[in-house]
Amino acid sequence: MIDTPYLLFLGDAPDMLAAKVAIGIRDWRPENAVGQISLPGCGADLGLTEMTLAEAKQAGAKTVVIGVANRGGMISQSWKDLLVQALEMGFDIASGLHSLLRDENDLVAAAQTHGCRLHDVRIPTVAYPIATGKPRTGKRCLAVGTDCSVGKMYTAMAMDAEMQKRGMKSTFRATGQTGILITGGGVPLDAVIADFMAGSIEYLTPDNDEDHWDLIEGQGSLFHVSYSGVTMALVHGGAPDALILCHEPTRTHMRGLPDYSVPTLQELADTALPLALRANPNCIIVGISVNTQHLGEEEAVAYLAKVEEDMGLPAVDPYRHSAARLVDALDAI
Amino acid sequence: MIDTPYLLFLGDAPDMLAAKVAIGIRDWRPENAVGQISLPGCGADLGLTEMTLAEAKQAGAKTVVIGVANRGGMISQSWKDLLVQALEMGFDIASGLHSLLRDENDLVAAAQTHGCRLHDVRIPTVAYPIATGKPRTGKRCLAVGTDCSVGKMYTAMAMDAEMQKRGMKSTFRATGQTGILITGGGVPLDAVIADFMAGSIEYLTPDNDEDHWDLIEGQGSLFHVSYSGVTMALVHGGAPDALILCHEPTRTHMRGLPDYSVPTLQELADTALPLALRANPNCIIVGISVNTQHLGEEEAVAYLAKVEEDMGLPAVDPYRHSAARLVDALDAI
Repeated sequence: MIDTPYLLFLGDAPDMLAAKVAIGIRDWRPENAVGQISLPGCGADLGLTEMTLAEAKQAGAKTVVIGVANRGGMISQSWKDLLVQALEMGFDIASGLHSLLRDENDLVAAAQTHGCRLHDVRIPTVAYPIATGKPRTGKRCLAVGTDCSVGKMYTAMAMDAEMQKRGMKSTFRATGQTGILITGGGVPLDAVIADFMAGSIEYLTPDNDEDHWDLIEGQGSLFHVSYSGVTMALVHGGAPDALILCHEPTRTHMRGLPDYSVPTLQELADTALPLALRANPNCIIVGISVNTQHLGEEEAVAYLAKVEEDMGLPAVDPYRHSAARLVDALDAI
Repeated sequence: MIDTPYLLFLGDAPDMLAAKVAIGIRDWRPENAVGQISLPGCGADLGLTEMTLAEAKQAGAKTVVIGVANRGGMISQSWKDLLVQALEMGFDIASGLHSLLRDENDLVAAAQTHGCRLHDVRIPTVAYPIATGKPRTGKRCLAVGTDCSVGKMYTAMAMDAEMQKRGMKSTFRATGQTGILITGGGVPLDAVIADFMAGSIEYLTPDNDEDHWDLIEGQGSLFHVSYSGVTMALVHGGAPDALILCHEPTRTHMRGLPDYSVPTLQELADTALPLALRANPNCIIVGISVNTQHLGEEEAVAYLAKVEEDMGLPAVDPYRHSAARLVDALDAI
């Protein structure tokens, strides 16, 4: 686990798009972010208090989180002075970048000297077990998508937030770098060794109160040939009681696979549910989450109504509107 | 790739069961084995010429293969004298054990001094790419099972042998430790990082002659919740033109999962084919391979006839009888 709260490092991010991780933390765990820190020329602004390292220390920040991704996922040399200074002041550093903090000699040396931790959240730190397939107490919900990057993390986050608001017992379970940095823990599933994938998800979602819901972050898609094995491990390791189908209606082909068409929601349902029933005979599909960002409001509302009628399930855009009806559906189980 | 031919090291194997790897090499690549070498008390005998290291050197052996697995997959201290001596004489060593040659300081030191290689085939040595999902030339056949350890490797090996006999173009593609040691190369799929699983199988089965068949070794089962993600990566990364369904009819539950029933061959067909069609729209199921080792001859023949009638596909036990009808079915595509 990464110590919170954070100071969010924006570096020399050219724009807000490059600050996706920081934005996620601000939006979903604002209590984890005491402020932001930028370098000259930074084009991103989260609207948080801009702080020096000393001010952040004063405000109680424990970890500097690299909230920015530059081209190639590298740790920029221009960040080094500030990051070394942070370690000298006793901050830990956390990063989800492809290039690793632990491979930067100057950061490693400073961390050792000052007794600080470097968290590379892309790298598993646990020796996960082989999955046992044994039923666990408590309930689990998994978002599965017609494609990658259709809003699975957002859907689970929004449902968790709604459940917290209602006083229900729930935990968002991160399975990717961004989710891990936002919440401070999780399993970097795409970096887990093949044999232990399903076991890592069992480990992530252990026995719990009977009325507790794990909202498991989805990854990939059963229909995406590059990553379908990762998704399969989530379906069987997560052993969900409930599936949410996620879709982005304007996509013309699978992400990164120009020759692969996007399946329909019905095709997703027909594929995912039988596989999920193998690990949890009580699993049902409870609702549909549509990412309507590329539709106008009227168009979005009409599309959701059509999907709801066709599929006979609540269909919402949790970002545009609300996750409330998806939570209602979970609550009815 | 591991240099051939091999000297097969049987160590102090208590019985033939412990010598599974060596038996596989003897049965499937006899030309790769110049002889065997044992320690006092060894209870396994492959029926090959028992040789000293010097005799094996004389006979042209390049690599000493650890053909035995003891409890826990450890490298036994009692093997060390012989293994160090082998390195001193210029042999490479290859092992598929859980504990690694590279973690044994004495072996590493001897290998460095004498310029020899230590092959730990459980560990990938290639930085596999992300799968592209692009069609490749040539043809591919994948064995998928109702469960783990039902004879998928054996089926692919037997089909490859039959195709070689007929002068057809074929290559057995190993995806597990035993297969890699038998053939000298392959992908240790269960040890590959999640994101690269499907890509590793594309890498293993590249463009080839239009009339060439890759016989891809299956792993796990789509119905085995511990390993289904690995199987899924084979189905999508392999993009097979042909599936062989593999089954062991006397198993009462999934291997290692006492509460999970074994699916029927029809359930396997209904699950595997739609998933396979995603990566290769021309994929068909061509036949069924049944492991009848626990049935009497009459019982086996009757069972195969019944399966053949029920499924409308050739059903054979390639070990007990022959893989010829499975190859006939491939040849007809």
